[in-house]
Formats: sequence, structure tokens, C-alpha cells
Amino acid sequence: MDPDRLRNLLESLIRGEIAVDEALEALSHLPFEDVGDARIDHHRRLRRGSPEIIYGQGKTPEQVVRITERMLAGGGPVVATRLAPEALTALASRWPAARLEKAARMAVMGEVPPGEDTGIVVCCAGTTDLPVADEAMITLEALGHRATRLADVGVAGLHRLLATREELTRASVVIAVAGMEGALPSVVGGLVPCPVIGVPTSVGYGVAFGGLTALMAMLTCCAGGLVVVNIDNGLGAALAADLMVRRRRG
Amino acid sequence: MDPDRLRNLLESLIRGEIAVDEALEALSHLPFEDVGDARIDHHRRLRRGSPEIIYGQGKTPEQVVRITERMLAGGGPVVATRLAPEALTALASRWPAARLEKAARMAVMGEVPPGEDTGIVVCCAGTTDLPVADEAMITLEALGHRATRLADVGVAGLHRLLATREELTRASVVIAVAGMEGALPSVVGGLVPCPVIGVPTSVGYGVAFGGLTALMAMLTCCAGGLVVVNIDNGLGAALAADLMVRRRRG
Amino acid sequence: MDPDRLRNLLESLIRGEIAVDEALEALSHLPFEDVGDARIDHHRRLRRGSPEIIYGQGKTPEQVVRITERMLAGGGPVVATRLAPEALTALASRWPAARLEKAARMAVMGEVPPGEDTGIVVCCAGTTDLPVADEAMITLEALGHRATRLADVGVAGLHRLLATREELTRASVVIAVAGMEGALPSVVGGLVPCPVIGVPTSVGYGVAFGGLTALMAMLTCCAGGLVVVNIDNGLGAALAADLMVRRRRG
Amino acid sequence: MDPDRLRNLLESLIRGEIAVDEALEALSHLPFEDVGDARIDHHRRLRRGSPEIIYGQGKTPEQVVRITERMLAGGGPVVATRLAPEALTALASRWPAARLEKAARMAVMGEVPPGEDTGIVVCCAGTTDLPVADEAMITLEALGHRATRLADVGVAGLHRLLATREELTRASVVIAVAGMEGALPSVVGGLVPCPVIGVPTSVGYGVAFGGLTALMAMLTCCAGGLVVVNIDNGLGAALAADLMVRRRRG
Amino acid sequence: MDPDRLRNLLESLIRGEIAVDEALEALSHLPFEDVGDARIDHHRRLRRGSPEIIYGQGKTPEQVVRITERMLAGGGPVVATRLAPEALTALASRWPAARLEKAARMAVMGEVPPGEDTGIVVCCAGTTDLPVADEAMITLEALGHRATRLADVGVAGLHRLLATREELTRASVVIAVAGMEGALPSVVGGLVPCPVIGVPTSVGYGVAFGGLTALMAMLTCCAGGLVVVNIDNGLGAALAADLMVRRRRG
Amino acid sequence: MDPDRLRNLLESLIRGEIAVDEALEALSHLPFEDVGDARIDHHRRLRRGSPEIIYGQGKTPEQVVRITERMLAGGGPVVATRLAPEALTALASRWPAARLEKAARMAVMGEVPPGEDTGIVVCCAGTTDLPVADEAMITLEALGHRATRLADVGVAGLHRLLATREELTRASVVIAVAGMEGALPSVVGGLVPCPVIGVPTSVGYGVAFGGLTALMAMLTCCAGGLVVVNIDNGLGAALAADLMVRRRRG
Amino acid sequence: MDPDRLRNLLESLIRGEIAVDEALEALSHLPFEDVGDARIDHHRRLRRGSPEIIYGQGKTPEQVVRITERMLAGGGPVVATRLAPEALTALASRWPAARLEKAARMAVMGEVPPGEDTGIVVCCAGTTDLPVADEAMITLEALGHRATRLADVGVAGLHRLLATREELTRASVVIAVAGMEGALPSVVGGLVPCPVIGVPTSVGYGVAFGGLTALMAMLTCCAGGLVVVNIDNGLGAALAADLMVRRRRG
Amino acid sequence: MDPDRLRNLLESLIRGEIAVDEALEALSHLPFEDVGDARIDHHRRLRRGSPEIIYGQGKTPEQVVRITERMLAGGGPVVATRLAPEALTALASRWPAARLEKAARMAVMGEVPPGEDTGIVVCCAGTTDLPVADEAMITLEALGHRATRLADVGVAGLHRLLATREELTRASVVIAVAGMEGALPSVVGGLVPCPVIGVPTSVGYGVAFGGLTALMAMLTCCAGGLVVVNIDNGLGAALAADLMVRRRRG
Repeated sequence: MDPDRLRNLLESLIRGEIAVDEALEALSHLPFEDVGDARIDHHRRLRRGSPEIIYGQGKTPEQVVRITERMLAGGGPVVATRLAPEALTALASRWPAARLEKAARMAVMGEVPPGEDTGIVVCCAGTTDLPVADEAMITLEALGHRATRLADVGVAGLHRLLATREELTRASVVIAVAGMEGALPSVVGGLVPCPVIGVPTSVGYGVAFGGLTALMAMLTCCAGGLVVVNIDNGLGAALAADLMVRRRRG
Repeated sequence: MDPDRLRNLLESLIRGEIAVDEALEALSHLPFEDVGDARIDHHRRLRRGSPEIIYGQGKTPEQVVRITERMLAGGGPVVATRLAPEALTALASRWPAARLEKAARMAVMGEVPPGEDTGIVVCCAGTTDLPVADEAMITLEALGHRATRLADVGVAGLHRLLATREELTRASVVIAVAGMEGALPSVVGGLVPCPVIGVPTSVGYGVAFGGLTALMAMLTCCAGGLVVVNIDNGLGAALAADLMVRRRRG
Repeated sequence: MDPDRLRNLLESLIRGEIAVDEALEALSHLPFEDVGDARIDHHRRLRRGSPEIIYGQGKTPEQVVRITERMLAGGGPVVATRLAPEALTALASRWPAARLEKAARMAVMGEVPPGEDTGIVVCCAGTTDLPVADEAMITLEALGHRATRLADVGVAGLHRLLATREELTRASVVIAVAGMEGALPSVVGGLVPCPVIGVPTSVGYGVAFGGLTALMAMLTCCAGGLVVVNIDNGLGAALAADLMVRRRRG
Repeated sequence: MDPDRLRNLLESLIRGEIAVDEALEALSHLPFEDVGDARIDHHRRLRRGSPEIIYGQGKTPEQVVRITERMLAGGGPVVATRLAPEALTALASRWPAARLEKAARMAVMGEVPPGEDTGIVVCCAGTTDLPVADEAMITLEALGHRATRLADVGVAGLHRLLATREELTRASVVIAVAGMEGALPSVVGGLVPCPVIGVPTSVGYGVAFGGLTALMAMLTCCAGGLVVVNIDNGLGAALAADLMVRRRRG
Repeated sequence: MDPDRLRNLLESLIRGEIAVDEALEALSHLPFEDVGDARIDHHRRLRRGSPEIIYGQGKTPEQVVRITERMLAGGGPVVATRLAPEALTALASRWPAARLEKAARMAVMGEVPPGEDTGIVVCCAGTTDLPVADEAMITLEALGHRATRLADVGVAGLHRLLATREELTRASVVIAVAGMEGALPSVVGGLVPCPVIGVPTSVGYGVAFGGLTALMAMLTCCAGGLVVVNIDNGLGAALAADLMVRRRRG
Repeated sequence: MDPDRLRNLLESLIRGEIAVDEALEALSHLPFEDVGDARIDHHRRLRRGSPEIIYGQGKTPEQVVRITERMLAGGGPVVATRLAPEALTALASRWPAARLEKAARMAVMGEVPPGEDTGIVVCCAGTTDLPVADEAMITLEALGHRATRLADVGVAGLHRLLATREELTRASVVIAVAGMEGALPSVVGGLVPCPVIGVPTSVGYGVAFGGLTALMAMLTCCAGGLVVVNIDNGLGAALAADLMVRRRRG
Repeated sequence: MDPDRLRNLLESLIRGEIAVDEALEALSHLPFEDVGDARIDHHRRLRRGSPEIIYGQGKTPEQVVRITERMLAGGGPVVATRLAPEALTALASRWPAARLEKAARMAVMGEVPPGEDTGIVVCCAGTTDLPVADEAMITLEALGHRATRLADVGVAGLHRLLATREELTRASVVIAVAGMEGALPSVVGGLVPCPVIGVPTSVGYGVAFGGLTALMAMLTCCAGGLVVVNIDNGLGAALAADLMVRRRRG
Repeated sequence: MDPDRLRNLLESLIRGEIAVDEALEALSHLPFEDVGDARIDHHRRLRRGSPEIIYGQGKTPEQVVRITERMLAGGGPVVATRLAPEALTALASRWPAARLEKAARMAVMGEVPPGEDTGIVVCCAGTTDLPVADEAMITLEALGHRATRLADVGVAGLHRLLATREELTRASVVIAVAGMEGALPSVVGGLVPCPVIGVPTSVGYGVAFGGLTALMAMLTCCAGGLVVVNIDNGLGAALAADLMVRRRRG
């Protein structure tokens, strides 16, 4: 809104041609940060029932507890990821009812919304990929999704993967978690007619390079339509899947 | 289905307890490759009106023309990407009505479905990112989407990006294309409540590393829910956006 | 098999033109997963006497014990690799007769088939490469091979390598294990008329890059016919050597 | 020192023409290369009928022609790889009967042995991988193998791969050629009970990194027994397959 | 500004407690994009006399000419970098009075402000680094600085560098340009009491890695206070030096 | 050679105690370091009140204490960075009045000059970036600057950053600290008309690569005039900011 | 076959106790390693007084002690590097007279030859580089060299380096040890007329990359004649310097 | 300040024309570079008969000719490396008697000193490594050395290398040139008792990485005493070998 239009607006207000509320409404589209703040709030805090996220790595147990307290005051559940064992213990003693997941290094505090089957499938290649798959599963549950987990369906035993094709075909979104050569999302991407989110994991040794090889393999995948998140980022995959499914529901 | 159940099925058929069509229906869930072929067909050729894709790099003009001919016989439009100038010329002389995009190195042959506004927004950071953004735009059009393109909204001139926030907020999916430091999807991801697909481009020099820095920056983005495709992969982003939007429509 | 041929088959069955068994036989080539399951079983569990493999890294002692129990029920020996010390202890207390190899971080449970000299030679460059060489040796033994181990035959002391040329020349397959500059397989590959499998190890410091330099050196080796596996992957080399030799025996 | 000269030396010693110390001195220079040369000759020139290899990259057409002449004098066929177009032309004009393969950048001069079906299968993921697959095929033919080529069986269209499982299951060795994410050998390795040699190709863009991603993916493959060669190294895979099959035949 | 304060402001305006201009002034601090646009304008177009920058890489000659025309309309000089020879020619024929620098691949169109000695020194290690040093020099001149260039003062001939220490000591900012091992900024940083901006260049071969080694060396420099820009980024160094010196002048 | 010895030499020459040739010979060894030492002293020890720096990594507590003692004798405060916990304890027990910063792993011994507001702003993207931001803040304080710290202003919540634009616009120098995708300096660089120093941090996981991605993103930033220091190098950024501001004051 | 056995063989031949053919047969197995062993022995065990080297990393204390015992039986001193603290303790309790260097992680057992001034200079950039410099110094002493150590002569304080130019100019070989940006050997290489061996160290953080940046900087150094060894390889530099000086002495 | 001016200064002091303080002041500016220049001159231009070096890459033919003219005025021969074909032509037409080496991209102008056999051996692994080996050979000749070249002695045909062991054993310095896996220097380093300089070449493809793999392999070589130069740096190896041998002769 340029100064002239703004001046006109104010003069109309003085002349009584528009009401204060009308002026407020018009002005509410001016300041980025006012609306923006609200919108981003809307986006990041989401609606009531959706979780706040704490990235626990590099934070002390005290910091994690303090931030959780502040966030819980906002209402919804709080999801904390990449927690050190001491932080898990601190959360457990402060909120005995919290859900603690040691292998996935996560905790969920506050009330989780009732789950709804929104068709999200989380599959993973090997048992050592489970903590990352579970980071996605638990985040999805805190977001109100009742997702399906298909474990140990790696491509080296193709029949195990093919045995799950019914679940895969019905999915609204598939989160495919795999370490080592990261071929699972490629193969799944060729089987299903829905978005596939590849999550490389740091499982492996030697040139697995802590997940880099799986990541690069997924990015170069020739199955069109595969999208990818950072290594071990089950959380990010869940947030993306939620965004994909949410608007469909809304 | 194990052999015994199969034997029972066949014996029921002989005994006239089930009809041939019932047996066919039951058997149609058996052979992976039969149904699978169809399903994958369904998935890859999609339904009538959706395009076939030719990856043009490393193919001779003759090969591109021959494959296009075969694919057009299947009905829908054919999208060819990463075409050498000679291949573009060959396609133009064979199909004078084809849509040729020199900068984006693409061609579309056959009839494109009428466009529908499905809310997909393609934004890019700089003018040199346009060919990649256009690869996404043209693919989306061939898929039947009438998408919105927002050019030159890089984060170094934040006000230009903020000036588009209305379009961004209304989007169903945002494809954010950026080279150099690749910060655009991070900032957009914090502004919009829909899925954002980051497309790094090879624009830049020095440690831009042909798009690798932009890719890595997008993957480590702290805005939850951002997903990423390979460097310069406008095609892949369009296919993913189509999958995200499609089911909502269907 | 397309639907028409399938319909014809079923109608022939009804008309009595073919017997149920004939129909079963024809149909047995249809469902991928039935035969496939069996075949993959055949491939991965192999015939009686061959081992199951547990990749121990990232698994708890309880998980390793539980999986071992389930696999032992299948008959053959079970080979577990990359075991943490606690997992080794847990296996030892559950199966006192198990073979435990602390340096190689392996365990073998169940009865190992009697060894047969199949001409496989495992040579390694330095004494610090021995744990990887032993991972190959122990796996080979569990697979029923009585292999020859030639230790400390690095190329910096060429005469030590040349002193073993008689054993090398007679080999059916040579597994050459080396860290640092990884030159051993290059030199061996020029000496022997059989397949050579290079196994880079993470031995070294500085630009040894945890085995990457050795791996790259082996891959660029100018001795034609050298094949390579992942860093420290003695297990994989043994499995490959077994496959190369096995069919010759069968 | 050849055997005759050695015999003369010893007879001179017996005849007293030279002293023990003189003989000792002469023997201390006993050339290693006599024995060694023979063995290595045996290994590298192999027996009559096997090819000599010229690595054409970085060589002038004159050099390639001159080396070919010298090698042909030794008898067997000569295989030249990575030839520049000028070198191909020079070879064609010098040996009009030579086999020239422009896409694979190869030439074969001299008489090729009659082909024998030794069960080697060469499969590749995409049509752009064909030149590398053909480098392997042509080398195998020059070595006397009549191999089977399975093209365009990438994992994104799994049913195409599964349709070839009969050929794959019967193979003695499978050479699996793939670029981009390089998942083909992983999947094949889970299907067949024979050695699989993975050949990554430089097909792809972005983080395909000229074949590096495919290479790394193959090396970290969880299908036990997969072995790998350098990027685009169809020649090396063929030489390795020949060594694996040869001894079985001999 | 929160809604309540905004409402109060508007009501004060209606009640005549404040004038329209006062309200405008207050509101001018609200809308980010209005002020922001101006401020960023102020920042990027700077005050009269400062240049506009065109990043020429990947742009056609026509695009470069068209953008230059539009920018010249804004008043100040226009600096175009990384120009292809064709773009240089196009600019020369459109603006015969333009300054063209072929080696530095730059052009300056429009009137350049009179130069002022602001104490900026540009030094470079070798003669092959000159194009990058000149990109900095020419940009500085277009920004109104009369800088000093010290060429060929690499650390391998330390006396040449030390011979310039008087100029270096008097500098307000030193831009130190170096390829290969990039040691010049380290040594200069230990000699002068002013900010030093290191510019790595892509000069060198082998592990010079196109400037990456020089960049990394500068970043790890133990001389406190050295700052660094991207490889070959003479432009960026000049813009940074201008910002450092400008406020001192203003 | 100190000035006194030089004066003696010249007086001996005048008194005829030594010949011109002898004086020439003695002078030819005139130590560079006299002049140099003074100048470099001036640069590195700076004037009274400025700190000495100890890089604590890899030093024993005893070494850190001993070097601190020697430096304190020189007058000004001593700043020690990257201290192990044991070194912090040792310093605390030797200098009970020292300032110890556990999270930033720093200590400041000796008297710090009174702080002056020189307009330096230190902003950081996330709370886990605080230790690096504090390394810069504490160093600046020891150098006599009273800087402003803006925490948690990452680009994913753009409104938080924009809320600080007043402080940013008034800054003389901005130090922008960010891990993960490192986009903060890009955005800040587009907002402010002063030098911006980007400090990448090692915060993040996966392809954050310990700060490398943030570093590369900052270096390729399209906002002209951004300069960068090594990963986690808050100290270096503070020293550079001091140099930029100092001359303006002096 | 040792010389005595060979002499016996020849004398048997002369005495007619064996036939020429028998001698030929025996000689055909004449172990290469006898001649080779002698030469390599000469090379690796060197002459009396030179040390045996044990690479301690990855070896248990027991292994280190056992190998030392065997090597000491051969006469000269034994140098052990990269020793874990436990290995140092084990050596100290077995050989109380051994020289133990904790910081350099080395031990020297057995009698060291009297030192001779052969003009070797070891200089290093910072105090944290000392352990690597000392690895070179101690190895040189064990090899009979009385070398000169110049510590803390990094290029950021150029005057300290220049103050040592007399020692540097007189050197026969200079070993220049430096971490971080690794500029020391570049500068030294421009000052001295003798061979310079650069030793990068892993000192530094961020993009120091554990010594890789220093290594690359040294390799791209524009001072002709600089040669380089692996990161932290003080031992290798000492062995190379010994070889360079030795022949001059002999 | 040249010696004459210094003598004048001192004589003015004796004559009382200037005071001690004036002389002190004048001397405080005593230019380091006078003494330094002489020493460095001595070092870099060396004594009469040694060559000047021009690094031709990135220089125009005119620049190369002009610098050569200036250098030839200094007396000795001039060696130009990495010359573009146009530069070679320009040099040939200006100095018809110059030595031009097209494959090695070098030229030598001016009179070369008579060659002396100083025992330097240059060996290389393959024929494609010859241009780099020749860069070393030609530089050595220009420096007055009559070196021995041993071509095609790669480790894959070990007998060819062993056949040259007599020449290798007599060498004063060995320059070992190798691409691909770069194993030659490792093996040579184990055979000879003199310094070995490894020169990696950019010969190879795939993970040869333009010489990086060979470089890394040489640096991690377990043969003590091997030193290394940059990829394709035959010049640097020759300069280093000259420095090693020179002092022995002087």
C-alpha cells in the first residue's frame, strides 16, 4: 500500500466515510509482521491439538524441561527429538505421564489428539532403520494420524516388499526409510501412485558415509516424483506428510 | 496364495461352483506382473491425458524421435527433457505443432489437456533459475495444471518475496527453485502452510559446486516439512506436486 | 500371462482338456511371490548347512540373541558380525559352545559343516588388517570352506609377497585385504590367473580417510579383472567367493 | 637368465672354468623375471585365442595403430577401448575387417574365437547405460563367450526386471550395469544364486556425480556377495566374469 | 504495533488529536514492505553515484543489454560481470563509451563518480590472479574509490611482499587475492592493523581444486581477523570493502 | 638487534673504533624483526587494553595457565578459547576473579577495558548457536565493545527477524551466526547497509556436515558484501569486527 | 635359501653328488627373497645402528611388546609410534631404560647411535604442532641425526620466522610442520636453497578438516621443490630426510 | 637500499654530516629486501646456468614471449610449462632454436648446461603417464642433469618393474610417476635405499578422480620415506630432485 493510498484511507476515516473497524481491517493487511506473526503462528503452532517441536540436540536437560513447560502452556502436545538420555530422564521425572521412546530418542508431553487413519504408510528397509521410522511414526501420532508401519521390507528380499503391495497401493503418502544403498524409495516409487518421501538413514559402514550414499541414491532416483529429506530426519518426513494430507482433510 | 488354495480354486471352477469370471477375478490378484504391469502402467502412463516422459540426455535425435512416435501411439502428450539442440530441431521438423522451449531444453508433443487451477505455485530466486522453474511449469501444464510462476523473489531482496505472500499463502503446493545459497525454500517454508518442494539449481560459481551447496542448504533447512529433489530437477518437482494435488482432486 | 491366455487355460480346465495338475504347473509360473519366495529362500537360506547372517551393528544384545534363536531353528549355523562386546558376552552365556572372535567382533552359533579345500586364499597386507581378513576366514569356514590365510604380505616388502606366489597361483579365488594405499590387490591381480576380490580396510590415518583411499585405489587398479567390496567388508568378500566357487563344485 | 644360460653356468662350474664364488655371484643376479615373466605372460596374454587389451584414452591414432600391429603379431584378437573417433577411423582404414562400435567407443581386430554359451548375463537399467553394457558384451565375445544381454530392466519398473527372472536365475555370472541411484545390482543380487558384478555408469545429473552415487550405492548394498568395479568399466567387469567362468570350464 | 495501539492511533486521528501527517509518520514504521522497499532500495541502489550490478553469467547478450538499459535509467553507473565475449561485444556496440575489460570479463556503463583515495589496497599473489584483482579494482572505481593495486607479491618471494609493507600498513582495508595455496592473506593479515578480505582464485591445477584449497586455507588462517569471500569473487570483496570504508566517510 | 646496540654500533663507527666495512658487515645482519617486531607488536598486542588470545584446544591446563601468566605480565586482558573443562577449572583456581564461560568454553583474565557502544550487533539463528555467538560477544567485550546480542532470529520464523530490523539498521557491523542451512546472513545482508560477517556453526546433523553446508551457503550468498569466517569461529568474527570499527574510532 | 645352503649346493654339484638337472631344479626354486631379502633388509633394517619402526596404532600392548622383543634381537634401536597410553606403560615396565614421549605417543627402545649434526632442521608453526615435530625429531635422533628444532615460527608472525633465517639457510634439509592453513612450508620454501619436506598436521577446527586443508595447501604451493608427506606423519618426514642426507654422508 | 647508498650513509655519519639519531632513523627503514633479495635471488635464480621457470597456464602467447625475453636477458635457460599450442607456436617463431615438447606442453629457450649423470631416475607406470614423466626429464636436463627414464614399469606387470631393479638400486633419487591407483611409488619405495618422489598423474577415469586417488594412495603409502608432489607436477618433482642432489655435488 503506497503512501497516497494510505493518506486517502486515513482521510476517509476522518471524514467518517469508513469505520474504524474497516480501517483496521484494511490496515491489517499492511503490516507484515502483525498478520504475518499470526499466520506463522497459525502455521507453526498449527491449530489446537497439533504439537510443538523441540530439537533436543545440544540442549541441557534443564533447557529442554524449561522450553517444554513454556510450550505446554500454549496447549497442544510437545514433541522433543534427539534427546540425550539425561534429558529423557529429566522429562520423565517432571511429566510422569509423558511418552518416552528411548531408541527413537524422543518424548511426547501433553495430550495427543485422537488418531485418524489418513492413509500414511511408513516403511523401512531394515531393523536398524526402525528408530528413524519410529521418529516419523511418533510425530505422526502426535499430529493426529494413525499411520501404518511396514518394517523390514528391504529390496534385497524383494518378496517381502511385494507382499505389502496392497497396503502400499492404498496409501495417501508413503514415507520410505532406508540406509546403506537407500534403494527402497526407488522401488516403492515405481509401485505406488502417491507421493513418496525418502528418508535416508545413517545405518551402514564404509562408503555408506553416515547416510550420504543413501541420500544421493534417493535424489538421483529415476522414479519420477520421489522427494527427499535430510539423513535420519524422520521428524521432517512426518511434518511433510502431515502437510500433504492435511489440506485434503481440511 | 498357496498351491492348495489354488488347487481348491481350480477344482471349484471345474465343479462349476464358481464362474470363469470369478476365477479370473481371484487370479487377477495372483500374478504380480500381470496386475502389476497394469498398475504400474496405471501409475506411469497414468490415466488418459497424462504425459509420457523422455529423458533426452545421452540420446541421439533419431532415438528421441523414434521413442516419441512409439509413445504418442499410446495417446497422451509426450514431454521430452534435457534435449540437445539437434534433438529439438529433429522434433520440430517431425511435429511442426510441437511446443519447443529452447532455454528449458524441452519439447511437448501431442495434445495437452485443458489446464485447471490446482493451486500449485512455482517461485524462483533469480532470472538465471528460470529454465529450471520453466521445466517444472511446462511439465505441470502437460499434466493439466495451470500453475502460477513467481520469478525473481530471492531472499536478498526480501521485500520482493514478501510482496507475493498472498499468492504463496493460497497455494496448495509451492515449488521453490533457487541456486547459490538456496535459501528461498527455507524462507518460503516458514511462510506457508502447505508442502514446499525445494529445487536446487546449478546457478552460481566457486563453492556453489554446481548446485550442491543449495541442495545441502535445503536439506538442512530448519523449517519443518520442506522436501527436496535433485539439482536442476524441475521435472521431478512437477511430478511430485502433481501426485500431491492429484489425489485431492480425484 | 495375459488375461485371455488365462481365460483359455481355465476354460480348457473346465472342458477337461487339461488336468488340474497341468493347470497348477502352468499357474505355478504365474505368481511371482510364491515361486519367488521359495527361490529367494533357496538363495538366501541356501541349502542345509549354509549360514544365516546377522549384521550386529546397532542391535541390542537382546535383539541379537532373539534373532539368533529364531535363525538356529532353521537349522544351519548362524554368523553374527560387528558385535559389540556386550553382544558377544550375551551370546557366549546363551550358547557356551559358540565360537567367539573378539578381534573380528564375530560369533558363530550352531554346527559348522566340515571344511573342504576349495582353493580360496585370503591374504592381507599388514597385521592391523587381520580382523577384516579373519571376518572373511571365519565366514568361509561357516560356509564349509577350508581357506588359506597369508598374513603380512604387503607390497612395501615385495619379497614377502613373492614368497607366497605358489599358494597364490594355485588359488581358485583370492581375497586381498589391504588398508592405507591399498596396493596389494593391484599387485596380486597381476600375478594370478583367478578372480581377485579386493577388500579395503579402514587401517591408516590422515588421507587414508578410513579406507576410502584404499577403496578408490583398488577400483582404479589397472590390473584387469579385480572386483571390490565395501571398506572392512570381509563378510561380503567371503559371500562373493563362496558364490564363485560354489557352482564349480555343485 | 634363461634356462640354457643357467645350464651353461652350472656346467662351467663343474668343469672348473669358474669358481664357486663366481657362480654364487652370478646366481645372485638370477633374474626373477624369467620365471615370473613366463607366469605373467601366461596370465596376461593367456592362452591362444584370448584378446590383448589397449586402453585407448590419451593415445594418438598412430599410437593405437602401432600398438595394435605389435599385439596382433602375437596371435589373438586385440580389443581397443575408449577410442577417440579419429582412432576408430584410423583402425578402420588399417584393418577394414575390424569390428567397430562407435557408441561403445571400441574396436576388435583379429580373429575372434567361436562363441560358447557360458551363462554370463549382462543386464542394464536404462537405454543410456547401453554403451557400458556393450563394452562388457563385446569384450566377452572377444574372449569367446556368447553372453545374454537384458536391456532396460531398471528397478523403477520392477515388472520389466521380474519378467527376465528366468534368464537371471540360470546365469553363471550376472553383470548388472546401472547409473543414477544404481539400485539394479542390489535387487538382482537378492534374486539370483550366482556372483553379481555391479558396474556403475556415469549416466545422470546433479548428485549422480558422474557415477559416484551409483558406485557408492552398490558398495553399500545389503545383498551379500555383490562385487563392484570402477564407473563405466564394462571392460573390467567382462574380464572378471571371464576369470570366474574360465576355471570352471578349464 | 499491536491492534489495540493501532486502533488508538486511528481513533486519535478521528478525534483530531493527531494530524494526518503524524499518523502517516507513525504508520510509516508499520508496513515492512513500504519502508522496507525504500530501505532496501537505499541499501542496494545506494545513493546517487553508486553502481548497479549485473551478474552476466548465464544471460544472453540481449538480456544483458536490456537490463543495462533499464538500470541506466535509474541514473548511476552499471557494472556487469562474468560477461561472455558476445555480451561484451553487444555492450560495446550499444554503448561505445562503455569501459570494457576483456580479461576481467567486465563492463562499466554510465558515468563513474570521481575517484577518492579511501585507502583500499588490492594485492595479488601472481599474474594469473590479475583478472580477479581487477574485478575488485574496477568495481571499486565504479563505487568512487581510487584504490591501490599491488601485483605479484606472493609469499614464495617474500621480499617482494615486504617491499610493499609501507602501502600495506597505511591501508584502510586490504583485499588479498591468491590462488594455489592461498597463503597471501595469512601473511598480510599478520602485517597490517586493518581488516583483510581474502579472495581465493581458481588459479592452479591438481589439488588446487579450482580454488577450494585456497579458500579453505584462508578460512583456517591463524591470523585473527581475516574474512573471506567466494572463489574468484573480486566483486564481492569490493562491495564489502566499500561497506567497511563508506560509513567511515559518511 | 635492539636500538641501543644499533646506537652503540654507530657511535663506535664515529669514534673510529670500527671501519666502515665492519659496520656494513654488521648492518647486513640488521635483524628485520626490530622494525618488524615493533610493527607486528603494534598489530598483535595492539595498544594497551586490548587482549591477548590463547587458542586452548590441544593445550594442557598447565600450559594454558603458564601462557596466561606470561601474557598477563604484558598488561592487558587475556582471552582463552576452546578450553577443556579441566583448563577452565585450572584457570578459576589460579585467578578466582577470572570470567569463566562454560558453554562458550572461554575465560577472560585480567582487567577488561570499560565498554563503549560501537554499534556492533551479534545475531544468531537458534538457541544452539548461542555458544558461538557468545564467543564473539565475550571477545568483543574484552576488546572494549559493548555489543548488542539478538538471539533466535532465524529465517524460518521471518517475523522474529524483521522485529529486530531497527537494531540491525543502526548497526556499524553485523555478525550473523547460523548453523544448518546458514541462511541468516543472506537475509540480513539484504536488509542492512553495513558490513555483515557470517559465522557458520556446526549445529545440525546429516548433511549439515558439521557446519560445512552453512559455510558454503554463506559464501555463495547472492547478497553482495557478505564476508565469512571459519565454522564456529566467533573469535575471528569479533577480531574482524573490531578491526572494522576501530579505525573509524581512532 | 641362505648363502651357505647355496654354496653347499654348488659344491655338491662340483663333487658330482648331484647332477646338473638336479641342481637346475633346486635353483629354479631359488627363492627370490634371498637376493631380495638381502637388498630389502639392507634397505629396511638399514645398516647397524638404524632403527626398526613399529606402527603402534591398532595393536595391543602385548603385541607391541612382543614385536619389540623380536626386533631388538636384531640389534639396533626400535622406534614405536602412535602408541596408546597402555602400550607406553607396558613398554616402560618391560624396558625401564626406554625413552618414552607421551605427547608424541612414541617410545625408543635399545641403544641409540651417537648423534651427528647433519644439518637437518625441523621447524613448526604453532605449539600445538609440537607433537608431530617431535615425532620427526625423535625418529631423527634414533637414526643418528642431531637435528635443530625451531618452534612457533608460524607465518602470522613473520618476524619470528625471519629471525631464524640463519639456521634455515644453513640447513641440509628442512622439515616444516604446520596445521591450519599450512602456509609455513610455502614461505620457508621461498627462503632456503635446500629440500623442504612439508608435514601437515591435524591441528585446527572447522574447514581445517583434520589437516586436509594444510595438506592441499602444501601440495599446491607455488614454491618449486617442496615435497609433502601424509597428515601428522612426522615419522615419514624423518625417514625421508634421513634418506636425503644419508647418501651425502656415505 | 643498495650497498652503495648504505656506505654513503655511514661515511656521512663519520664525517659528521648527519647525527647518530638521523642515521638511526634512516637505518630503521633499512630495506629488508636488499639482503633478502640477494639471498632469494641466489635461491631462485640460482647460480648461472640454472633455468628460470614460466608457468604458462592462463597466460597469452604474447605474455609468455615477453616474460621469456626478460628472463633470457638474465642469462640462463628458460623453461616454460603448461603451454597452450598457440604459445608453443609463438615461442617457436620467436626462438627457432628453442626445444619444443608438444606432448609435455613445454619449451626450453636459451643454452642448456652440459648434462652430468647425477643418478636421478624417472620411472613411470604407463605410456599415458609419459608427458608428466617428460616434464620432469626435460626440466632435469635444463638443470644440467642427465637422468635415466624407465617407462611402462607399472605394478600390474611386476616383472617389468623388477627387470629394472639394477638401475633403481643405483639411483640417487627416484621420481616415480603413476596415475590410476598410484601404486608404483609404494613398490619402488620398498625396493630402493634412496629418496623416492611420487608424482600422481591425472590418467584414469571414474574414481581416479583426475589423479586424486593416486595422490592419496601415495600419501598413505606404508613404505617409509616416500614424499609426494601435486598431481601432474613433473616440474616440481624435478626441482625437488635437483635440490636433493645439488648439495651433494656442490
